Amino acid sequence: MTSSTPHPAACSPGPARRDAEATKAAIVRAARHLLARHAHTDITLKAVAERAGVSPPLVLKYFGSKDALFAQVLSFEADAEAVLDAPLEGLGRHMVQHLLTSQAERGADPILRIVYAPLHREHGYVLRSNFRTQVVRRLGERLPGPDAGLRAELAVGMLLGLGVMYGIARGPHVRSTAIAEITDRYAPAVQACLTPPE
Amino acid sequence: MTSSTPHPAACSPGPARRDAEATKAAIVRAARHLLARHAHTDITLKAVAERAGVSPPLVLKYFGSKDALFAQVLSFEADAEAVLDAPLEGLGRHMVQHLLTSQAERGADPILRIVYAPLHREHGYVLRSNFRTQVVRRLGERLPGPDAGLRAELAVGMLLGLGVMYGIARGPHVRSTAIAEITDRYAPAVQACLTPPE
Repeated sequence: MTSSTPHPAACSPGPARRDAEATKAAIVRAARHLLARHAHTDITLKAVAERAGVSPPLVLKYFGSKDALFAQVLSFEADAEAVLDAPLEGLGRHMVQHLLTSQAERGADPILRIVYAPLHREHGYVLRSNFRTQVVRRLGERLPGPDAGLRAELAVGMLLGLGVMYGIARGPHVRSTAIAEITDRYAPAVQACLTPPE
Repeated sequence: MTSSTPHPAACSPGPARRDAEATKAAIVRAARHLLARHAHTDITLKAVAERAGVSPPLVLKYFGSKDALFAQVLSFEADAEAVLDAPLEGLGRHMVQHLLTSQAERGADPILRIVYAPLHREHGYVLRSNFRTQVVRRLGERLPGPDAGLRAELAVGMLLGLGVMYGIARGPHVRSTAIAEITDRYAPAVQACLTPPE
């Protein structure tokens, strides 16, 4: 299909690259969606491609193989970067706000995927191990004071629970209350794990 | 198989009934285990029976049908009873302690099953609806003060997250710390949702 009206994006620099990034992101989202509902071994490249609205060869072009695609899908590296991206004294608020915004805007949040670990047997092991290293340990290393590892687990636990309540149990109250208000109510408890009062 | 040595249980009253209860509980546990790993439609009565160590006809004898078995498996009624069984002023501690004890002793907790809702499509809907009515609303109805529904969701969210961290992410610190210590650290935040300080 051709058109004589140039698409606005075609005028700005690097549209091909931006399109590629958007397509890769769509493929990762599609794979994550399927991983929340089916065992890893039951998911075909074709199903991922279909859901992302692309062809299976394009998935292979971008990711090389199903295994390489899933390695990226099972990683929390980029998500942890975003959810932990704040100075320690405001980190509790940032974590809660970031999670709620992700849930409200994308219907998913940066850490909720860990709950699907039991579905995936050996890949569940990879998911758990990535989660502990890339999210929990990374947070723990930033915390001053004693029992930093335990406190990081408790803080991340609180955050996980809010994601489950919002995205899975679909609590009508959390879903209809302003993000700022839930943050005001919930973040102090998370922050108390990060920087205990005293 | 017969034996001339009487089994101790055979001497106490009502052993047949107790055995039946134990068998039913084993069947429910088996069904719950499978529901955490497979879509509802992929689970056969035979698989449930096998995991419970009984015959498929026995499952039918106790539950009537696969649908009736799953209706019980998807209910939170009995679990909510136990996890909410404390006076309001000590409820946060009780909820946390009960969850951790269940996780430590049975490898599962009273409310964690809700996280498998996305696996089960229309049955996921039943699971969510049961969860909201039998657990969250029931708790909310006990809370004095404004925004009881939202506060109940936040309290249950915190509890869910601790279950995910313990039972799914398998955080090494929460798993190796005494239940009493985690309760001391975590319960005040849950309690603050139930009975806000002021």
